[in-house]
Amino acid sequence: MTRYTIGLDFGTNSCRALLVDAGSGRELATHVFAYPSGTDGVWLDPAEPNLARQNPADYVTGIQESIVGVLRAGRAADPDFCPEAVIGIGVDTTGSSPMPVDATGQALCFQEKFRGNPDAMVWLWKDHTSYAEAAEITRLASATRPRFLSKIGGVYSSEWWWSKILRCRNVARDVFDAASSWVEICDWIPAVLTGELDPKTIRRSVCAAGHKAMFHPSWGGLPDREFLEALAPGLGALRERLYSETSTADRRAGTLSPEWARRLGLSPSVAVAVGAFDAHMGAVGAGIAPGTLVKIMGTSTCDIMIHPAGDPLGDIPGVCGIVDGSVMEGYYGIEAGQSAVGDLFLWCVHQLAPEGYGGTPEERFERLGRAAAELRAGESGLLALDWNNGNRTVLVDVRLTGLLIGQTLHTRAHEIYRALMEATGFGALAIIDRIEEYGVAVREVVNCGGLAARNPLLMQIYADIAGRPMKISRSEQAPALGAAIFAAVAAGRAAGGYDSVAAAQRAMAGTGRVYAPDPGSHAVYRRLYALYRRMHDAFGTREGSGNMYGVMKELLDIRDEVRRA
Amino acid sequence: MTRYTIGLDFGTNSCRALLVDAGSGRELATHVFAYPSGTDGVWLDPAEPNLARQNPADYVTGIQESIVGVLRAGRAADPDFCPEAVIGIGVDTTGSSPMPVDATGQALCFQEKFRGNPDAMVWLWKDHTSYAEAAEITRLASATRPRFLSKIGGVYSSEWWWSKILRCRNVARDVFDAASSWVEICDWIPAVLTGELDPKTIRRSVCAAGHKAMFHPSWGGLPDREFLEALAPGLGALRERLYSETSTADRRAGTLSPEWARRLGLSPSVAVAVGAFDAHMGAVGAGIAPGTLVKIMGTSTCDIMIHPAGDPLGDIPGVCGIVDGSVMEGYYGIEAGQSAVGDLFLWCVHQLAPEGYGGTPEERFERLGRAAAELRAGESGLLALDWNNGNRTVLVDVRLTGLLIGQTLHTRAHEIYRALMEATGFGALAIIDRIEEYGVAVREVVNCGGLAARNPLLMQIYADIAGRPMKISRSEQAPALGAAIFAAVAAGRAAGGYDSVAAAQRAMAGTGRVYAPDPGSHAVYRRLYALYRRMHDAFGTREGSGNMYGVMKELLDIRDEVRRA
Repeated sequence: MTRYTIGLDFGTNSCRALLVDAGSGRELATHVFAYPSGTDGVWLDPAEPNLARQNPADYVTGIQESIVGVLRAGRAADPDFCPEAVIGIGVDTTGSSPMPVDATGQALCFQEKFRGNPDAMVWLWKDHTSYAEAAEITRLASATRPRFLSKIGGVYSSEWWWSKILRCRNVARDVFDAASSWVEICDWIPAVLTGELDPKTIRRSVCAAGHKAMFHPSWGGLPDREFLEALAPGLGALRERLYSETSTADRRAGTLSPEWARRLGLSPSVAVAVGAFDAHMGAVGAGIAPGTLVKIMGTSTCDIMIHPAGDPLGDIPGVCGIVDGSVMEGYYGIEAGQSAVGDLFLWCVHQLAPEGYGGTPEERFERLGRAAAELRAGESGLLALDWNNGNRTVLVDVRLTGLLIGQTLHTRAHEIYRALMEATGFGALAIIDRIEEYGVAVREVVNCGGLAARNPLLMQIYADIAGRPMKISRSEQAPALGAAIFAAVAAGRAAGGYDSVAAAQRAMAGTGRVYAPDPGSHAVYRRLYALYRRMHDAFGTREGSGNMYGVMKELLDIRDEVRRA
Repeated sequence: MTRYTIGLDFGTNSCRALLVDAGSGRELATHVFAYPSGTDGVWLDPAEPNLARQNPADYVTGIQESIVGVLRAGRAADPDFCPEAVIGIGVDTTGSSPMPVDATGQALCFQEKFRGNPDAMVWLWKDHTSYAEAAEITRLASATRPRFLSKIGGVYSSEWWWSKILRCRNVARDVFDAASSWVEICDWIPAVLTGELDPKTIRRSVCAAGHKAMFHPSWGGLPDREFLEALAPGLGALRERLYSETSTADRRAGTLSPEWARRLGLSPSVAVAVGAFDAHMGAVGAGIAPGTLVKIMGTSTCDIMIHPAGDPLGDIPGVCGIVDGSVMEGYYGIEAGQSAVGDLFLWCVHQLAPEGYGGTPEERFERLGRAAAELRAGESGLLALDWNNGNRTVLVDVRLTGLLIGQTLHTRAHEIYRALMEATGFGALAIIDRIEEYGVAVREVVNCGGLAARNPLLMQIYADIAGRPMKISRSEQAPALGAAIFAAVAAGRAAGGYDSVAAAQRAMAGTGRVYAPDPGSHAVYRRLYALYRRMHDAFGTREGSGNMYGVMKELLDIRDEVRRA
């Protein structure tokens, strides 16, 4: 009998359920539920553009709607499918997206007292209200606990766990005081499904803990009480109400609670896996293995690798995080990323493309892309730095900005559009180079996410820049597929699942289209990449190369040679 | 009785006659004649985008049409005006715009044999077909006659006299061989008016000769025969059929020929002044004097100063030309310029402004300008280099390109538009700084041309950047007014004119609106200018400052301070 698992992917605006054949990886059906609260599911504050919160009630409704929907769609797709064949559910979410909870593990905003209070809701990953708190944490850690920063690239982010909790303490003391504990939503949703909500025993994802909460076994788990208390009185006491143990996502959080089994029409024996972040599960869904770099490509980009935990691996400067087990048990998870990729193209389409490229953003995307595809490498004479939203890896510096060089009076918007694409490709290569310099060989690159699936020009440019094939994940829903893979492992082989993530991946994940590098374009891009690195190092590092004389001339030389060829 | 002079201004697309009261400078009437030949008066070749020629028959028709038209308009404007009151005609033209002529001084293209042959027409200033020849001249002069380059900024341009003649010899040998001589159109048009067309005796403008033909008394006039012959056999022999004397524009070329007097309805006693280039006459029309920098602002910009010829003045590195008498007798004319000013704004309006700014270029200009005017100095966080068309002064390097830095995902087109305006202002200040460094004090800046008259935001930005008042020429037709001033001097005091250019200027020229610098904006711009100079020197010179780390951060600091203020 065919067995199925369900991957639940909780994104920024909606959640998705993916019903997957655990034997073959065939994606039988999917169902998307758009969060009803706020603006496209995000609670905003017109007076504070940094604020982004989420109503956890949307997740509860989303579990119900998306699973019921995907089971219905599964039956429609295959009359032989029946819900009894579902053996596991896996969960991936955005993060760091922490939420204050009461002693029963329920969201504080579910209490009458805090209803509609955004500080009692989920502090969504992209909430940046706590930038000052993040700077304070970085300052204190640099001064007193530099080792805390060594695993996270040197700078603590306003998007992360402690920044948000500290911010809450500073601006919403009533919420902070009422919180019995705080939970990442990747931990809370599996707890809801199993009904085991006691915050003292909720399974905590090592992925969230290690990458966002400065949790590391070498210093006894979370940052010590003294450090936290120095940040703000009360934070040290909170530490004792959080957690000291973490889990990898191949473990069971438990089984479906009787009530959820009834509501969903599933068996109470269905395994619920420990949750993790979307990028990390996406990497698994895209077939990550030692030597494989998985790029999850969207508005920004997350790059994930794994490295056997038995092999020695030091810190990699500028790489956001190296956490044992954050992707798969037995491996270090290595996380890097680019702060703006799809967002950079959107910016160009919205802010820089004149009317001639079309009246709607869709038309402009289409025509800019078509015109950009007509250009050869180097033909425009342009070069850009991809830093309009700062640089996450390898410079870890939000106070960097965009740069465009080489424009003439004839430069057109589609040339800039292509230069921005190329800039993100150069940035991607800089990450590969840095990881390899520190002893982790990149033998394969697999791309997933919307840009990978739907932007062949971008993928060809990446292949030509890197001089490496760019493989595309077979699944267009790699995070949800990854969650379904973990569900199959949590269910176990006896139930029709697997006893290891690698075995589940072999059966369920794979790659599809491959973009092969063009040697001629690669030769031109090698020269352009050298110029990109000169600019990158000069503007992004204190040690960078000196005089820039010759950069413009070399770009013109390349342009003229390409045009003559 | 009121006396009048006529300034004839031969531009790229049309010629203009300006009828001026020689006593007060009042501009009684103007008449514009659009050249009928080619595309907007320019003969183009679809297969060779560098080619730009002009039909000299258009000038002859233009003299007739514009003078008859302006006399008619003068009578309409003032019933007391009568053509007998006209005492002189002055001529300014584009340049270097040389033309091959036969032994009678007639254009070769007037001959049946060469009719419609663009190589036998006027090689318009912006014809760039001879870029290889220009490089060859620079190479040979660097190697064997470095002094030839010392007065022209170090590089011989494809826009200039010898490049074009050499090109003609290389690609149209029949035209070259048939040419008895070559004449700048600023010399040819006065010769047409006086009827004294013999090329051996045509009065040659020192302005054209000194700035464009490497004519200098210290090496015996034009470049020596050996040098020219080394460039190409035959060029040395041509030298002997050119000229060895030059004139300043306050001299008479002669008086109106009887035939032209009859055709125009003017007296044959009307003085015709020696011609010169538009920018130089524009400087006079704008009231140039020692210590006054006149900026003629259009698609590109020409900056003119004068310096008493008796005072010692060495070469100023990177300044295009220093020629004794090229603006006024008794003074060195100092010429500098920026390769793209209005063109840079046009580029932004056409290529980078999305639909939201309006459907037509006019609407986009208007709305971009309005939105840019709302911004404060430093508020956008952007900084640009104004090199989309290379840098004429002070780097003298066509192989430089544009650069924009500081963009984020929120950057909008009007912020870029303002950054480009500011970039041209920083470039303008770099010219002022260079000239002052070499001992010529700039005590006043007068702006003329379309941008000065019609772009108050630009002028305010310039004042704020330079920390100096920006004065605007009272006349919107400064070159034509300058030609009318020279006409009044050529006519002489006895006829109701003047015996010096300075005296004529005092009566006829002046400034109007003044933009005063805002101290707050100037303080911000001083910081931005320091960053501009760092970028300028790093990308534009071999010696430029080293590491660029901090440039983006300083821009963000400035932006954040301005936004908070």
